[in-house]
Amino acid sequence: MTLDNIKEEILNSKNIIILTHEVPDGDAIGSSLAMYIGLKQLGKDVDIVIPKYSKTYSFLPCINKIKAEGKIENYDLAIALDCGDIKRLNGFSNYFENANCKISIDHHEANTMFADYNFVNPTAPACSQILITVLKALNIEITKDIGTCLLTGIITDTGGFKYQNVKPETFEFAAEILSKGVNVSEIYKKTLQTVSKEKFELRKRAINRIELLEEGKIAFTYITQEDEEQTNSEDHDGIVEIGRDIEGVEISIFLRQNDNNEYKISLRSNDYVNVSDICLLLGGGGHMRAAGGTITGVSFEKAKEKVISECKKHLHK
Amino acid sequence: MTLDNIKEEILNSKNIIILTHEVPDGDAIGSSLAMYIGLKQLGKDVDIVIPKYSKTYSFLPCINKIKAEGKIENYDLAIALDCGDIKRLNGFSNYFENANCKISIDHHEANTMFADYNFVNPTAPACSQILITVLKALNIEITKDIGTCLLTGIITDTGGFKYQNVKPETFEFAAEILSKGVNVSEIYKKTLQTVSKEKFELRKRAINRIELLEEGKIAFTYITQEDEEQTNSEDHDGIVEIGRDIEGVEISIFLRQNDNNEYKISLRSNDYVNVSDICLLLGGGGHMRAAGGTITGVSFEKAKEKVISECKKHLHK
Repeated sequence: MTLDNIKEEILNSKNIIILTHEVPDGDAIGSSLAMYIGLKQLGKDVDIVIPKYSKTYSFLPCINKIKAEGKIENYDLAIALDCGDIKRLNGFSNYFENANCKISIDHHEANTMFADYNFVNPTAPACSQILITVLKALNIEITKDIGTCLLTGIITDTGGFKYQNVKPETFEFAAEILSKGVNVSEIYKKTLQTVSKEKFELRKRAINRIELLEEGKIAFTYITQEDEEQTNSEDHDGIVEIGRDIEGVEISIFLRQNDNNEYKISLRSNDYVNVSDICLLLGGGGHMRAAGGTITGVSFEKAKEKVISECKKHLHK
Repeated sequence: MTLDNIKEEILNSKNIIILTHEVPDGDAIGSSLAMYIGLKQLGKDVDIVIPKYSKTYSFLPCINKIKAEGKIENYDLAIALDCGDIKRLNGFSNYFENANCKISIDHHEANTMFADYNFVNPTAPACSQILITVLKALNIEITKDIGTCLLTGIITDTGGFKYQNVKPETFEFAAEILSKGVNVSEIYKKTLQTVSKEKFELRKRAINRIELLEEGKIAFTYITQEDEEQTNSEDHDGIVEIGRDIEGVEISIFLRQNDNNEYKISLRSNDYVNVSDICLLLGGGGHMRAAGGTITGVSFEKAKEKVISECKKHLHK
């Protein structure tokens, strides 16, 4: 069984490197730090290598142990966490490839099974949830610090227990973690609730521009490069959801100017429109209720017209 | 033990009326409906009387069983749910007082113990969480419908599992409820996520007016009666939290014009200011991090000045 092999490889390794996906989110950082603390409990020599991460996560235990590069070339063992593809390893696939043994622990549906041992469960809402099982198999004690990291992963990857992929087990693990003294309220506040002044100003611009079209079934908004420069924020996370959450809206469209003639499109739907189909037509893709694409070489007005026109067609299908 | 008495009284009663607090929220409606469905399972003749409630909750099972008044004057048993004081029983204290036996199941700290049997636990984040224990004591099966009502209570009273009062048990109950097939994502969406167009317009006005004072430690905003008339919304829930959630803000102030010369104040703090102290000075009260009060007989400018000046003093204490 994969879990037995993973356990054996970890116990037999001395030098271990932990890697995760590029532009790391709360689950990537949280599961990496939980694994780091757990392996230190076992007396391992561990490096955790992440070149750049958001200061949102600076409250996490052992965050200062994160390094921008590894200290040796050939680790006994490399563990990739929350990463579906070796290409997404932050440009650090060399450490992964050079390691004597390679383990991947992940929850992405499209995981390419790129390791020697792949412990992948696409039904888990967060890699951190899978990691609890691995840590327990290694008899690692789930301390308050490990729990804080794991709950950060679960909270950020489930939007605060609100996504469809939340399972009874998710709540069971949360209960167990809370019993170690972990403060769910603090984690929620630091990761999901607080916005920087800059992000607040950027969001405000997007909010003020929301247009409701097709009898309120389509919400449209946008952000330009000028907006990002003037507000000093590039953090457009969550903007497309503002339109989606207005009652009666089926499709929310968010256009973001990337370069002079390039527009990134984000689409969300509520109940019946498959926005992934729309994005496929626009050179992108995604899921039924959340997808994205890019429109290049046209003006803002043309880009807006094109995406709205496609959305209208799908709305009335 | 109170729970044994409650069990006995319920089993020995035929005509039962369920009541809850005025301006009922998700926990009031959710726990009332869960109790209704549970008592119907036991073959009881049950009335659930709530004069007015938000259409947000129209998705709940058996919501159409709610009546605007009782069908008899003297019930065998009256059960008050999520209500700390008999005065808050929606003007229906007569049904409560006329009943042969009176039970209160609640989680408000200031509960006045107004019933014959008071099953009150102020450490529970929601009345719905306490109700699970009561339903189980009665051997009532926690069905998907009952679970949907209870989880609605828990989600709305914890802001989606984010408040300090969330306990390991809260997550354990959520796990159990989810295992009955209840959809946490749908409940979250319907109760916490979706805003009406009207509310969106009102929020937008408040967002655009947010001023950051005292080096960003105080956020101030307001809503006038004219705003409410023009947007056709009086739903100011959550407005004071917008300012609180901006990084660096310690006190968020929200002023709402009630009558020509009356202003309702809502205050929130993040880390150290006791806003209840400030509100006591303004004829109100509340908790350390969330409190309210009223300023009367002065102009908007004076009201604003007064509350900001008090906040400044407490900021630098």
